[in-house]
Amino acid sequence: MREVAVLGAGQTPVGEHWDRTLVSLAGEAALEALRDAGLDRPDVLIVSNMLSGVGPGSQLNLGAQIADWCGLKGVEAFKIEAACGSGGAAFRAGVHAVGSGLVDLALVVGVEKMTQTPSTVTTAGLATAADADTEAAHGPSFIALNALIMRRYQHEYGWKHEDFGAFSVNAHANGALNPYARLQQPITHEDYREARMVCEPINLLDSSPIGDGAAAVILVPAERLVPGGGRPRVVVAGSGAATDSLAVHDRRDLLWLAAAERSARQAFAQAGVGPDEIDFFELHDAFSIMAALSLEACGFTERGQGPRLGLEGAILPSGRLPIATQGGLKARGHPVGATGVYQIVEVARQLWGAAGDNQLPEPRVGMAQNIGGSGATILTHILRIS
Amino acid sequence: MREVAVLGAGQTPVGEHWDRTLVSLAGEAALEALRDAGLDRPDVLIVSNMLSGVGPGSQLNLGAQIADWCGLKGVEAFKIEAACGSGGAAFRAGVHAVGSGLVDLALVVGVEKMTQTPSTVTTAGLATAADADTEAAHGPSFIALNALIMRRYQHEYGWKHEDFGAFSVNAHANGALNPYARLQQPITHEDYREARMVCEPINLLDSSPIGDGAAAVILVPAERLVPGGGRPRVVVAGSGAATDSLAVHDRRDLLWLAAAERSARQAFAQAGVGPDEIDFFELHDAFSIMAALSLEACGFTERGQGPRLGLEGAILPSGRLPIATQGGLKARGHPVGATGVYQIVEVARQLWGAAGDNQLPEPRVGMAQNIGGSGATILTHILRIS
Repeated sequence: MREVAVLGAGQTPVGEHWDRTLVSLAGEAALEALRDAGLDRPDVLIVSNMLSGVGPGSQLNLGAQIADWCGLKGVEAFKIEAACGSGGAAFRAGVHAVGSGLVDLALVVGVEKMTQTPSTVTTAGLATAADADTEAAHGPSFIALNALIMRRYQHEYGWKHEDFGAFSVNAHANGALNPYARLQQPITHEDYREARMVCEPINLLDSSPIGDGAAAVILVPAERLVPGGGRPRVVVAGSGAATDSLAVHDRRDLLWLAAAERSARQAFAQAGVGPDEIDFFELHDAFSIMAALSLEACGFTERGQGPRLGLEGAILPSGRLPIATQGGLKARGHPVGATGVYQIVEVARQLWGAAGDNQLPEPRVGMAQNIGGSGATILTHILRIS
Repeated sequence: MREVAVLGAGQTPVGEHWDRTLVSLAGEAALEALRDAGLDRPDVLIVSNMLSGVGPGSQLNLGAQIADWCGLKGVEAFKIEAACGSGGAAFRAGVHAVGSGLVDLALVVGVEKMTQTPSTVTTAGLATAADADTEAAHGPSFIALNALIMRRYQHEYGWKHEDFGAFSVNAHANGALNPYARLQQPITHEDYREARMVCEPINLLDSSPIGDGAAAVILVPAERLVPGGGRPRVVVAGSGAATDSLAVHDRRDLLWLAAAERSARQAFAQAGVGPDEIDFFELHDAFSIMAALSLEACGFTERGQGPRLGLEGAILPSGRLPIATQGGLKARGHPVGATGVYQIVEVARQLWGAAGDNQLPEPRVGMAQNIGGSGATILTHILRIS
């Protein structure tokens, strides 16, 4: 497979876009990515979305609709859905489309519009990422499933709730500098400890906010870009994808993201690097327990030691493994089907040196990991300057 | 891109499977395809589905769930959705996954479970393939949009309603011989003329039935198969994909499936053949007007002359261009997100000489066309013996 580069990116702020349609958000991000790349028409448009078919005003067939809105009538277009992992799966499909030589220019756009739907519908919609028969039908929402995992994790490893605070404090500090983030206010450890409980032991500041938003990237063959041009050439060095049981109780091990480990191993192997060579990591911190589990499954720390990376400051922009550098799901926000593409946009912007106030000092290798369900579908990508 | 072959196939009967879950239908087809191919584990599972997120008991993240049900825990899996064109889009993604060299074995499974959902919910769900703001919000169901097109077509070209009857009579005659078809009873031209009106001018026998069902195929590199082995080696000679506006009123030309023409041209060019070299055509006869429009857009007849192919008998198994050879959407049934994969299974079975009582005499090149929305997302594939 030929090497694939990320040429351009676009994103809307994550927020409550009451005056906007889903397709206009997607179109704004897509057209910005095309402009950023200096191109006007892709060979294929790959959309990621989770919930557009749920609730009032439902709309499927988004590929054709977004293509038309963007003035791309006729272009091949389709949607990929893998719950909250949709964005990573769509990006991977774009990498394959270009890597195979079948197309030379893929536009991947992730979009979600959540805040206008009644919250009960949204909560029920999000629960469709869980097992309908053995989980959702019995009432647990997604936060409840994560709470079960976090409680068990604390029981097994002895971490106190406040030990997870560094994840949220870091994410908010970074989000405060990102004009695209939904939550732009820093928080303190005291704020974290005193936040109201949502589903014990998960409190409000353990939880990422949903939101409306869209993010887009352009993929081209790397050979088309001259290294050392205007901004660094960023290539997709590794891509991995794996699944696990939908239902939490079906997992062999409740506290191990087997699909994260598997997909990360694939990505590391393809990129020819290991955890020590990753300069920063955009992880899927939908809840703070997920940040800990991702760090462990990817080999950034030992099993049960995820919170230590927070407590030691390793995850800060100045640390050895900055995470959520532009706010993560926790502060940038989690427009579910778009999140995986936001992560890729953020990794690319860091490598281009275009991350604004969130810029890290000369990162060369970045990783993104996107999770669908409570660990069921996991995509890992490694991008690097080449 | 390396050449891709279809190695195995599986399907469930299309019907009202009251005692079955969506995932068990998908699993049955998937496992049958694996057995048929003599393989036990694919590198990737690509699911096509339209409506699993709509209505009671909704379930997204089907990729991970179906993988797990099949005993394929860990395997990469995701879902593609392009309304009723989902199956064709998923098949194309599988072709690209194998063609790119990234994987050696792709399992594509299309599945839909429709009959247990209240019919109002299903009708509203199907309407999500139309434009939510400018079509669905104003009330037209999918049949109403097709009725507008058919009425205009009759007005422009002077065809009487009964002139379309040959499409339905042929489909039912073929479906009667197919044990997987939902409707296995032949109909007469008199039945067609006298069928009750559903949405003028579309009557019941112009309309395909929805249904529950799943179909699956296995894709491998063609180089792995020895030509002249047990059954003929069937390769994907051409693949095309294109879009048009979702909303019927936005089309440049109401009576021309521009995306069908575009995607068919791509497939013809890739395969190095033209319409005259296609031995049979599994088209998207969701309504009889769509059969006529597809035949015209693909170049099998001139504009406005689709019904003539029916009246002349060209579409019969004994004709120069057999269509709907195993019943088509009209009689095999239209489990929407699965339909595009059923079409591929049917083309492959014909080429393998495994189409049972529906077997054509030694076909060598078959074509399938799958339509999402009233012409918005169209996939065309050409398979041939190689």
